[in-house]
Amino acid sequence: MKVGFMGLGQMGRGMAGRLLDAGHELVVHNRSSAAAAPLQARGAQLAASPLDLLDADIVVSMLADDTAVEALCVASGFAERMPRGRLHLNMASVSLRMAQRLTDLHRAGGSDYVAAPVFGRPAAAAEGQLDIVAAGAASALARCAPLFAAMGKNVFIVGDEPHKATIVKIARNYMLAAAVESMGEAFALVRKSGVDAKAFYDLVTTTSFTGSSYRNYGKLMVERNFDNPSFPLKLGLKDIELALAAGGETRVPLPLAGMLREQHMGALNRGLGDKDWASMADYIAERAGLGEVK
Amino acid sequence: MKVGFMGLGQMGRGMAGRLLDAGHELVVHNRSSAAAAPLQARGAQLAASPLDLLDADIVVSMLADDTAVEALCVASGFAERMPRGRLHLNMASVSLRMAQRLTDLHRAGGSDYVAAPVFGRPAAAAEGQLDIVAAGAASALARCAPLFAAMGKNVFIVGDEPHKATIVKIARNYMLAAAVESMGEAFALVRKSGVDAKAFYDLVTTTSFTGSSYRNYGKLMVERNFDNPSFPLKLGLKDIELALAAGGETRVPLPLAGMLREQHMGALNRGLGDKDWASMADYIAERAGLGEVK
Amino acid sequence: MKVGFMGLGQMGRGMAGRLLDAGHELVVHNRSSAAAAPLQARGAQLAASPLDLLDADIVVSMLADDTAVEALCVASGFAERMPRGRLHLNMASVSLRMAQRLTDLHRAGGSDYVAAPVFGRPAAAAEGQLDIVAAGAASALARCAPLFAAMGKNVFIVGDEPHKATIVKIARNYMLAAAVESMGEAFALVRKSGVDAKAFYDLVTTTSFTGSSYRNYGKLMVERNFDNPSFPLKLGLKDIELALAAGGETRVPLPLAGMLREQHMGALNRGLGDKDWASMADYIAERAGLGEVK
Amino acid sequence: MKVGFMGLGQMGRGMAGRLLDAGHELVVHNRSSAAAAPLQARGAQLAASPLDLLDADIVVSMLADDTAVEALCVASGFAERMPRGRLHLNMASVSLRMAQRLTDLHRAGGSDYVAAPVFGRPAAAAEGQLDIVAAGAASALARCAPLFAAMGKNVFIVGDEPHKATIVKIARNYMLAAAVESMGEAFALVRKSGVDAKAFYDLVTTTSFTGSSYRNYGKLMVERNFDNPSFPLKLGLKDIELALAAGGETRVPLPLAGMLREQHMGALNRGLGDKDWASMADYIAERAGLGEVK
Repeated sequence: MKVGFMGLGQMGRGMAGRLLDAGHELVVHNRSSAAAAPLQARGAQLAASPLDLLDADIVVSMLADDTAVEALCVASGFAERMPRGRLHLNMASVSLRMAQRLTDLHRAGGSDYVAAPVFGRPAAAAEGQLDIVAAGAASALARCAPLFAAMGKNVFIVGDEPHKATIVKIARNYMLAAAVESMGEAFALVRKSGVDAKAFYDLVTTTSFTGSSYRNYGKLMVERNFDNPSFPLKLGLKDIELALAAGGETRVPLPLAGMLREQHMGALNRGLGDKDWASMADYIAERAGLGEVK
Repeated sequence: MKVGFMGLGQMGRGMAGRLLDAGHELVVHNRSSAAAAPLQARGAQLAASPLDLLDADIVVSMLADDTAVEALCVASGFAERMPRGRLHLNMASVSLRMAQRLTDLHRAGGSDYVAAPVFGRPAAAAEGQLDIVAAGAASALARCAPLFAAMGKNVFIVGDEPHKATIVKIARNYMLAAAVESMGEAFALVRKSGVDAKAFYDLVTTTSFTGSSYRNYGKLMVERNFDNPSFPLKLGLKDIELALAAGGETRVPLPLAGMLREQHMGALNRGLGDKDWASMADYIAERAGLGEVK
Repeated sequence: MKVGFMGLGQMGRGMAGRLLDAGHELVVHNRSSAAAAPLQARGAQLAASPLDLLDADIVVSMLADDTAVEALCVASGFAERMPRGRLHLNMASVSLRMAQRLTDLHRAGGSDYVAAPVFGRPAAAAEGQLDIVAAGAASALARCAPLFAAMGKNVFIVGDEPHKATIVKIARNYMLAAAVESMGEAFALVRKSGVDAKAFYDLVTTTSFTGSSYRNYGKLMVERNFDNPSFPLKLGLKDIELALAAGGETRVPLPLAGMLREQHMGALNRGLGDKDWASMADYIAERAGLGEVK
Repeated sequence: MKVGFMGLGQMGRGMAGRLLDAGHELVVHNRSSAAAAPLQARGAQLAASPLDLLDADIVVSMLADDTAVEALCVASGFAERMPRGRLHLNMASVSLRMAQRLTDLHRAGGSDYVAAPVFGRPAAAAEGQLDIVAAGAASALARCAPLFAAMGKNVFIVGDEPHKATIVKIARNYMLAAAVESMGEAFALVRKSGVDAKAFYDLVTTTSFTGSSYRNYGKLMVERNFDNPSFPLKLGLKDIELALAAGGETRVPLPLAGMLREQHMGALNRGLGDKDWASMADYIAERAGLGEVK
């Protein structure tokens, strides 16, 4: 299949590589063309503009945020001009509002739109081991299946309207934010009574909180290993704001999220924005009088 | 070993039965003596007062809350009068303040005190499959080992001062409260956008939230199965208040807990106190405009 | 002076009338031209487009929200094309981001921009009794003085950069939101113990809370008079969101605001959006088990 | 009238002095007798025990907190043994629970109980200028009238059950806590955008927030004058905890209070407990990245 690909960040590069591995013909576009070189070396073509991707059967986008999507997919005319019968497979995390807007633009132009955000780190992307949450028309999803197979280990279909995948991704990341905060607070609570953080970590992650969310972030909290973030705290704030915006549009009160946002704002002011999300535990500990943030 | 046992509620009955199974000589005390009958039928003796347990090698207590502990272990003179060399093994969840008070009373009288709260439902208690969090002097813990072996599947030693086990139990339950709330909010968020709760549940519990806390409460939320609570919502509030009280005494700000308490208070006023804790999801959904609580 | 005026809502009509009273030559623009009729009857001219106001010495804008400002002042080309030496006096409440954007657009084009949001109800606008918070270059403020004199009873100059007036308006309204909520919660607290709301109202508004914010909203709460709102609850939410957005841009954690937003969202779902802001007290009371919202 | 008086702290001393001024016969009790000397010099007698006050017509108590009331009025046997026909006029701020307990004890013994907490600083107490919130049986209140006249400038009768005065005091102080926090957050918000705190203060305290609560605490915030506290931050936390405890007993969700408590806990860890309550503004500002607390 001829596949277009927009957005060659840490995630996108690995995903695009998997598509080449699977034998697809690839045309890539990225704001800085340097990121495309390794893919070009493997046979990918470089497109100067998002519009140059419009003759591909499916165009995958994996952009950083709404601003990038606005620029490359909306303002550029990409979504509006996509020909009838072509398909835009957006795998980035966007706001609920943007998901609806892209849906509308593609519907108006007669092209197809599938939202399929992913869970997983860059390493998982490079190995085709992502978890994919997908929503869109059944026929459109079927056309994406070979690409999903190349990039992911699981595909969760959550509905036939694209924004449903978007909200699922937002809600799951919001649960993650609550998990990070609650674990950080729990660590502060036991440490202030003299309990070793590692002992508490071992207990909770081998009994009721065995999930990877608790194991991974908890381990970083115990080790105070925040300097090579696989997910920086500032992106955690972005996710909370996506949840709040979605809650605002659909009128869902989110008491936890309202509070989490302010907590993250404070942590940013304390210089933790580019540290790992787990550094929230240090911010909480500092407020509890347990020494300074690292 | 001659073992005293105070508190034959749903949990205590099963635990005491396990001690009989393991061949220990058992003397039991309970406010209502009816609960003791099945144990008496198996050879346990009934004691009229907590003080009548004081000649046992170890006295296990498994009482409902601080008020019961205050009455049976403190006001009765039990802790104060326990002879030197005897041991009080408190397996109930109490406040941090009560943990410290019992420690002081036993120390003053020369007897030993071990705190060893448990995780697990009544069924696990009856099968000796509890997770036990223990703290106390090493020699005292060693003496408890045969009892732990009879009642639990895992023992986590978290320090040599009893209150450390108490705070660990409190902190872990507090994480549970945050998990219930965040999952409830996430369900409301996706449902309001038309996503099926079950689809979301399947996704999160098979990816980053595989722990039993999410699986068990999430399942009840999806099924709206709240009428045969294994853990009623009002006990969730009790746990949050234990966390807040501990945070107050040790000066640990707990932003989530402050908010969770008010949320639970509202749910109680909505008639959910005796429903399963998972019914919090219905309360959240109602506030989101998603229909009335069950 | 030749004055342009954009936005003839409840507030704008009264303000424009005061400018006619003061003898200024007035050209008005409104999306629906019907609102202009009474002013035309008094000599005002009607302009078909915001661009038709650009030959006035000063153009006052009093639009409902950022969306209206975006359409009429930005997308229309109004700000960009305003000739050097002309002045845009924006008296509406906008976001901090919009304040900065208008400042930049006018600066780029060489025209002047003054932000001067107001406090006061429509009646005060019609009588020239508004409180005006103004910020802008000193020379620009001086040119606005005759207009301020016609419309307001007090002018508070808070700086030479326009966005400073904007943030002051936002921060003050945010204090109002907190006052409404805290009074609502206090009413629920005393009522649940059998105290008459009126008795509590009399006490607090004659001792430490004598300000009009508490007197006016508290009176409506006591009377449960919510059906002819001078300020509907949904606008309260809008103000809180302006505060949160400003806090987000300038990184100021606002713990109260995060929580207030969720509370308002719940009240909207309970059907109170178009009721007076004071109806928040009914929402709070309902959650406290004190009967249904009116 | 023969009047007993318990509790000669900063407030009690002034109030007792006013009773002497009014010609009453005074018997005083205080844990440290030194505080009684100036009153003894003016003719007051010193009692060694609270029980020695029981032959007075009315015994006024003005103790620091529930712990002191528990010791001097309950554990001592004072309330239980007060003879039929005598009256206990408690002017201290206590918990709702303690208010109910004292009511019950006096009712059981046939004596009268009036709760009459006060608003005002020590200077107001010395000048008989307190605001008094009173509740109790009408006949009992009538008997207290001469004492109220000596000590207060206003008396607000809020019901015939004593706990109603208690909850009113708690609710009003809770509103004060919200006012302090919201003003602190608003200051941070405007300061971060370059607005002078004094300019903002002048504006709000001359428009919608003219009450003494905003004027007094706001002035201290602007001046950063925290070292001679007329009301230290840690007492603010105590008041919030009284509100939360009352909310807990009567099941009133208090979203603001839950959050306020955690905020105060953090401020205590930052060393502000003995500073003026207004120093909360510095804590908030620090979290906003506006420099260190004083």
